[in-house]
Amino acid sequence: MFGAVIHAPGDVRYEERPDPTILEPTDAIVRTVAACVCGSDLWRYRGISSVPAPTPIGHEFCGVVEAVGDAVTTVNVGDFVVGGFNPSDNTCPVCRKGAHANCLNGAHYEGCQADMIRVPWADGTLLATPQRPADDLVPSILALSDVMCTGWHAAVSAGVGPGTSVAVVGDGAVGLCAVLASVQLGAQTVIAMSRHADRQQVAREFGATHVVAERDEAGIARIKELTEGIGADCVLECVGTEAARSQAVGCVRSGGNIGLVGVPHGELPVNDLFWRNVGIKGGPAHCRAYLPHLLDLVLSRTINPGRVFDLELPLSEIGEAYAAMDERRAIKTLVRP
Amino acid sequence: MFGAVIHAPGDVRYEERPDPTILEPTDAIVRTVAACVCGSDLWRYRGISSVPAPTPIGHEFCGVVEAVGDAVTTVNVGDFVVGGFNPSDNTCPVCRKGAHANCLNGAHYEGCQADMIRVPWADGTLLATPQRPADDLVPSILALSDVMCTGWHAAVSAGVGPGTSVAVVGDGAVGLCAVLASVQLGAQTVIAMSRHADRQQVAREFGATHVVAERDEAGIARIKELTEGIGADCVLECVGTEAARSQAVGCVRSGGNIGLVGVPHGELPVNDLFWRNVGIKGGPAHCRAYLPHLLDLVLSRTINPGRVFDLELPLSEIGEAYAAMDERRAIKTLVRP
Repeated sequence: MFGAVIHAPGDVRYEERPDPTILEPTDAIVRTVAACVCGSDLWRYRGISSVPAPTPIGHEFCGVVEAVGDAVTTVNVGDFVVGGFNPSDNTCPVCRKGAHANCLNGAHYEGCQADMIRVPWADGTLLATPQRPADDLVPSILALSDVMCTGWHAAVSAGVGPGTSVAVVGDGAVGLCAVLASVQLGAQTVIAMSRHADRQQVAREFGATHVVAERDEAGIARIKELTEGIGADCVLECVGTEAARSQAVGCVRSGGNIGLVGVPHGELPVNDLFWRNVGIKGGPAHCRAYLPHLLDLVLSRTINPGRVFDLELPLSEIGEAYAAMDERRAIKTLVRP
Repeated sequence: MFGAVIHAPGDVRYEERPDPTILEPTDAIVRTVAACVCGSDLWRYRGISSVPAPTPIGHEFCGVVEAVGDAVTTVNVGDFVVGGFNPSDNTCPVCRKGAHANCLNGAHYEGCQADMIRVPWADGTLLATPQRPADDLVPSILALSDVMCTGWHAAVSAGVGPGTSVAVVGDGAVGLCAVLASVQLGAQTVIAMSRHADRQQVAREFGATHVVAERDEAGIARIKELTEGIGADCVLECVGTEAARSQAVGCVRSGGNIGLVGVPHGELPVNDLFWRNVGIKGGPAHCRAYLPHLLDLVLSRTINPGRVFDLELPLSEIGEAYAAMDERRAIKTLVRP
């Protein structure tokens, strides 16, 4: 089969790789229908995280089950499935608490931007659709494998609920999905912070009540204008840079919460937040905890997180898929084998 | 009148001070019935925080209203009242969110270990009892002015609720009240971490299901034994030292929450907590938000947080009141004018 391999910053290649095989009785092999490039893949592409050796890359997919191990009981060959970016057994004490991202037996994929994928813990990770979904639903189902679950996780971690005011820092696919999640969770005011017309447009389609283009102090001032002068109840930090963390700290009201889902590249002033009674929570998303509900919302066409894909390419053009996102010509690139 | 003044570390004196007077129409003057020494007062007594000049000290009290300003409407001369350690107007946008500790017009007392106290924002701060309470209830009402609200805040900030497992770091008066709060909030497992027999006894009376005497790695191992091997859902850090923060980080499960109420003297590994999806929230307690419910619980004799007082002295012996707590001869000292 063929798949994407990152060799060095800026160098992602479409290469022949060995077909994956069942290694554990709990595995499944999935033939990819669609995969995509994640903002977090760009940390390595941009040289901010290191690439010590050529590595298969990608952790988002949906597809059709090709084979299952002997112990797999909930998905069958031929099922259309989606799985979160972080395989979980869904049975350990941590999973039973709903914290699947931190499954005691958590595992990783070996590159999902590929024709076929070995899925560890198939029962605990994959969710099958009742039937083969309409093709126009594929992007939204694919979005559940990371960005929609991650945006949802930001909102849940920050306690977004009916009547709350929310500011979303970051207008990438995760930030946009965080807007969609906040609206679904009943937030009254949902402010997308974005300077890009195309992303502002998606945020509005997703239900943002306000768009703030300003950043830094001017951005904080605008958020306060929209929140009785005190800042937002919940701020969703969907970037992970020092600047984004700082923006989040400035935009949250005393007694409010910051939901963090950007891969952390910066500090937080914990003791200052203590005196302001600001909560901080977040991390990798508990995908399997959220997937059943979110898949229902997609299949019933209540939400359309697939809207974040604004470029579609064949898998063989994976290099361009990365370049388009790196150069901000695309919000998020979908690739098909 | 007379009151306590801290002159330097280890030097708290009983001195004549001017009688307080109404300065703002929203003030009240309260004649103290009981006051007490706070663990946080010891930061200055021990020289960890500085004492740049002689300063009236103390922020916990209950008493009888002696005078009110023209704008005060909810408390009257002669009322028995309690107020939180952080006066709040109870009307600003932050108070309306329930975050009274961060009231936009927040104010401070000028020393509550005194015969009389000026209370700013009397309507927003004080709560009157329906009648003069029985004398044996006075310690528990006094405890509401800080330690019980603060223990409650730790539990609320960490999301303690029905069925949760809780570990409390710190066996001072706040830690013990955090045990009591967790039990009231429906926690299933409440583990008090304490090495002192007298404090262990109070923790058990307050409903702790387990007491763990070990600290550091051994303490973490014991907490995990009691929580399916994964750590507690909620850890309440009621000390504020680096060691206590570290203990809390070690005892919390992935996806759980740390409630912080110890005055911070140490860092937290925010990015490590991110990967474990551990939430952090806390700060000074939103006393006025909690007081109505907690006062009901005290007056109905459902809770008896006054149990934390194990030494009672006349206000004139305030120096000994501090020394006894500093030397751990007392959990908490109550003083009466």
